[in-house]
Amino acid sequence: MIGKKYSNQKEISYYMCDRTQTLTLPMLVNLLLEVSGEQSESLGLGDTVMQEKGYSWILLQYEFFIDRLPKNKETVEIETFATEYNKLFCYRDFIVKDLEGNELVTVHSTFALFDFAKRKMARLPEEIVDPYEAVFNKRVKRTAKPAPVNEETAEQQPFNVRYFDIDTNQHVNNSKYLDWALTPLGGAFLSSHQMTYANIKFDKEVHEGQQVQSIYSQIAEDAAVTTAHKISTESNTHCTASFKWKKISE
Amino acid sequence: MIGKKYSNQKEISYYMCDRTQTLTLPMLVNLLLEVSGEQSESLGLGDTVMQEKGYSWILLQYEFFIDRLPKNKETVEIETFATEYNKLFCYRDFIVKDLEGNELVTVHSTFALFDFAKRKMARLPEEIVDPYEAVFNKRVKRTAKPAPVNEETAEQQPFNVRYFDIDTNQHVNNSKYLDWALTPLGGAFLSSHQMTYANIKFDKEVHEGQQVQSIYSQIAEDAAVTTAHKISTESNTHCTASFKWKKISE
Repeated sequence: MIGKKYSNQKEISYYMCDRTQTLTLPMLVNLLLEVSGEQSESLGLGDTVMQEKGYSWILLQYEFFIDRLPKNKETVEIETFATEYNKLFCYRDFIVKDLEGNELVTVHSTFALFDFAKRKMARLPEEIVDPYEAVFNKRVKRTAKPAPVNEETAEQQPFNVRYFDIDTNQHVNNSKYLDWALTPLGGAFLSSHQMTYANIKFDKEVHEGQQVQSIYSQIAEDAAVTTAHKISTESNTHCTASFKWKKISE
Repeated sequence: MIGKKYSNQKEISYYMCDRTQTLTLPMLVNLLLEVSGEQSESLGLGDTVMQEKGYSWILLQYEFFIDRLPKNKETVEIETFATEYNKLFCYRDFIVKDLEGNELVTVHSTFALFDFAKRKMARLPEEIVDPYEAVFNKRVKRTAKPAPVNEETAEQQPFNVRYFDIDTNQHVNNSKYLDWALTPLGGAFLSSHQMTYANIKFDKEVHEGQQVQSIYSQIAEDAAVTTAHKISTESNTHCTASFKWKKISE
């Protein structure tokens, strides 16, 4: 049983792509949240309504299974639906398809609701979950954790949180954590490897003016490579992630 | 006399906007070039064809006259047309309108053609300019220069050129220079001021792995403020820009 489906087509533009003419993961994240935002609007639960109710959604985790990422100028269909929810968490899937219906990317995500007045996570109210037609299941899902960074071999690069990293929600845009995580891998690696899996877990948010360290280590396993990442400040880990890669054949 | 017009509608998404729910200038630049790219495609002169001919367009200067920048979720009409050309330069305007036809932003831009084989600017061939129906005028236009930085009061901030700054054209995306120029102004200034004018001149391009300094100074004149900027490395100035601002009334 899954919830009400919503889908929309998006055209991939040059500014969303890297030098390999491929949609970047940070931009894919922006497009996914654009489509789930459209579903919320269509159900009368858009950002403005949610703000009036005193809530905002927080993204806790993403897991991506990637056959291939869309290419520059390609039009894709992005489908999304809530799957189930419990007292505190709700789960939403995204499926990115090409126009022939082939599934390119499948995404599982976990969201929670933040209560502004109480400054903490809210118990999910029926009026907010019912319109999505997700199923209540009291069991909290066990989601795979990102592979841990090997501190002995880890390398790191600092990033300053910039004005333009903060979006309309007044928070650092989720895609920026991915940008910080992936950038230290460098051009030679990123343009010769294709991502096949990504697991990103968001912990404490960072704020404008802070400096974060993007720390990563790499494990090669036969033809595949896994990279493990964390975004940290002195006192906190803000995001952990791991990616699986295969070499792009020449 | 102006050239063949092309226009398309674009919806402004949350990830294109800043915390004031307003389209950012870097994202506006991406949308403008997306629309002029669409015109080129429609005339059979898209990126792939141009590459086969051994050419690519380079953007030399932009001048923006801004009544207001579009808002989150607004749909705008972006119109573009080549105006005139001479031996080396061609001039293109963009007009951003709301759906009632009000002109929000007018943009003048200057482009040149780069010849890959000769590694220099090309004399504009008829087969490449004719389809745009621009008028030949042998006089090179005198375009306003950005206001110069006051070196005595200037402040600066370093930026590293990142993997994701480079787009499908294998060059640093033009919008990134604007991001570097504007970021040092900081959140308090940027969220309390509205840009009314921008003049951006591109000189030598920067490459992945380089570190640039974003240098700026500020001149207050009555209610208005002008900021002057340059993006430099040790040996070169890569971009100069100036912006005019008015305070957003509370």
